[in-house]
Amino acid sequence: METLSTLGEFGLIHRIQGLIREEGVSAPGLTLGLGDDCAAFLPRGGHHLLITCDCMVEGRHYLPQWISPFDLGRRAMTMNISDIGAMGGSPLYAVVSLGLKGEENVDGILEMYRGFLSELNPLNASIIGGNITKTDGSPFIDITLVGEVAVGSMLRRSSAKVGDVILVTGFPGRSGAGLQLLRKAASWEEVRGEPLIRAYNTPTHRAREGRAVALSGHATAMIDTSDGFLGDLGHICEESRVGVELNKDRLPLSEDLIRAASRLGKDPYEFFFGESDDYELIFTCPPQHVGNLRSAVASVSDVAVTEVGRITAADRGMRLVEPDGTASTIRPAGWDHFSAS
Amino acid sequence: METLSTLGEFGLIHRIQGLIREEGVSAPGLTLGLGDDCAAFLPRGGHHLLITCDCMVEGRHYLPQWISPFDLGRRAMTMNISDIGAMGGSPLYAVVSLGLKGEENVDGILEMYRGFLSELNPLNASIIGGNITKTDGSPFIDITLVGEVAVGSMLRRSSAKVGDVILVTGFPGRSGAGLQLLRKAASWEEVRGEPLIRAYNTPTHRAREGRAVALSGHATAMIDTSDGFLGDLGHICEESRVGVELNKDRLPLSEDLIRAASRLGKDPYEFFFGESDDYELIFTCPPQHVGNLRSAVASVSDVAVTEVGRITAADRGMRLVEPDGTASTIRPAGWDHFSAS
Repeated sequence: METLSTLGEFGLIHRIQGLIREEGVSAPGLTLGLGDDCAAFLPRGGHHLLITCDCMVEGRHYLPQWISPFDLGRRAMTMNISDIGAMGGSPLYAVVSLGLKGEENVDGILEMYRGFLSELNPLNASIIGGNITKTDGSPFIDITLVGEVAVGSMLRRSSAKVGDVILVTGFPGRSGAGLQLLRKAASWEEVRGEPLIRAYNTPTHRAREGRAVALSGHATAMIDTSDGFLGDLGHICEESRVGVELNKDRLPLSEDLIRAASRLGKDPYEFFFGESDDYELIFTCPPQHVGNLRSAVASVSDVAVTEVGRITAADRGMRLVEPDGTASTIRPAGWDHFSAS
Repeated sequence: METLSTLGEFGLIHRIQGLIREEGVSAPGLTLGLGDDCAAFLPRGGHHLLITCDCMVEGRHYLPQWISPFDLGRRAMTMNISDIGAMGGSPLYAVVSLGLKGEENVDGILEMYRGFLSELNPLNASIIGGNITKTDGSPFIDITLVGEVAVGSMLRRSSAKVGDVILVTGFPGRSGAGLQLLRKAASWEEVRGEPLIRAYNTPTHRAREGRAVALSGHATAMIDTSDGFLGDLGHICEESRVGVELNKDRLPLSEDLIRAASRLGKDPYEFFFGESDDYELIFTCPPQHVGNLRSAVASVSDVAVTEVGRITAADRGMRLVEPDGTASTIRPAGWDHFSAS
């Protein structure tokens, strides 16, 4: 087996550059790609540039025995693409920084780059730079992604208005349930085909949907569900200084999530509300524009769009209304990777 | 002592955001800073955007017992600023991704951010985003820096021409010698005031000088010496498909480097040519423009600019000419962090 230590850093970089040249698309505007002190590009007029960064550490955000290198590359790129999509933008250029131990199989590293490209190519985005360093600790994948959004289209977290309807794409919670199934499984092979495990290992971003929502001009705020549905809805509340009222019987629970929750002896709403790397979109709009937004999403995707509640005044907090009309306060647990508790 | 584990990730992020708002400058063009899915900015017309990424891993690129958190922040940002400067550009926006263990002192982390800002503020550049993740392994600091350079001014590695003069700023090798002194020292306190150790711990970028060189329009190629003088000159040879002839008696050896080499029982040229994080600039130009380039640099800085040799045809390779006229072939050892040897 050829490892990084036998091939050497510069040898690996040459292989990666060759792979990107052969199998990657060339993003528009690029004036200088891999191989100098910097990459360079000519930005388009009339557009904001967007920039986001997310890092995955082995043992914490993924376990190599549970995911193939190709899927790991897809997953790492998807979480960054999702952030660009959540602003209404399109990804353009990725910078990939890897920390590696040296004992890694070179073929596996190249497969991971194929995973990156399989997410970037369909969006006409490319890898234009990066860094490879040795680490004695846990390997990591740190990606910075640059995108663009037309001036006037950018959607923030901080602009939801009281009375707005809250919409969500897809079926949040499936990825979190998939992770639980993985943890209980005797081996990855046993469960790899399960839809919920695919949802965890290779989640789908909603960048095209996000762009369509933004271009429609009808949404007031948007965020992706990378911190879980309630955590991210909480970010909208905090940044927009509003409250929310959710209708429990409208929350989109998928059949496979309900079945998995039953197998795991859990309440399916725990998965829906809690930590789950689904990368769905939550967005808000005035009630009269719900139909326009549904049409906008339907023009690019078959994903379900569900109306789940309303934006309220901040002092109402976050509330969940049962079918019988009784309401209770709910709190996002949030993701706090360092909290002592 | 307050640690990350007691404060929590979101608590730390709020502290960092507060510090950046209070102590950082606001870079021009920024439309959305910290706190959403992405940061956003409006790029200027007539400029390429530049992007670079460098990562430092504890135990490999720095040892916490040898550098203060403030200086560590300065050093990490300097290496990225240097890459922007080596294209002739100016830094604008930094994205900082940290991997932390959780036991870190919060005050130390904030001091590191002050170090970042102390390098960015004078250049009117700011931190606009980032990520904080937990790692069970070695902590790391991964920075992606965005800059700009006017169209027509960008300087690459690949455009040196046969007959060009080779110039270098400052006195390469000092940082590498400083590292050796640190390794031999009983304690950091004993040696922290030494100029060569300062050169290692808090190197100076030459971004202003690089920009002046680029704006003059007289240089043909440029690179920074982050891989050591010979390693980076080798990159120019490879990318420009040229050779070089260096005059040994012209190479700028600083007095303190000569003294340190003597104390360490080493040849000072080993430090000059070898691995050393100096972040000086190597640039090339036709012979008749040397004076213009010296003036351009002198207009922004007191740093020495030394003519060290000429660009030759590729088939001559890299040669070192002794004062008596005899010549020998030299080879960059290069930095290869993963090579098995």
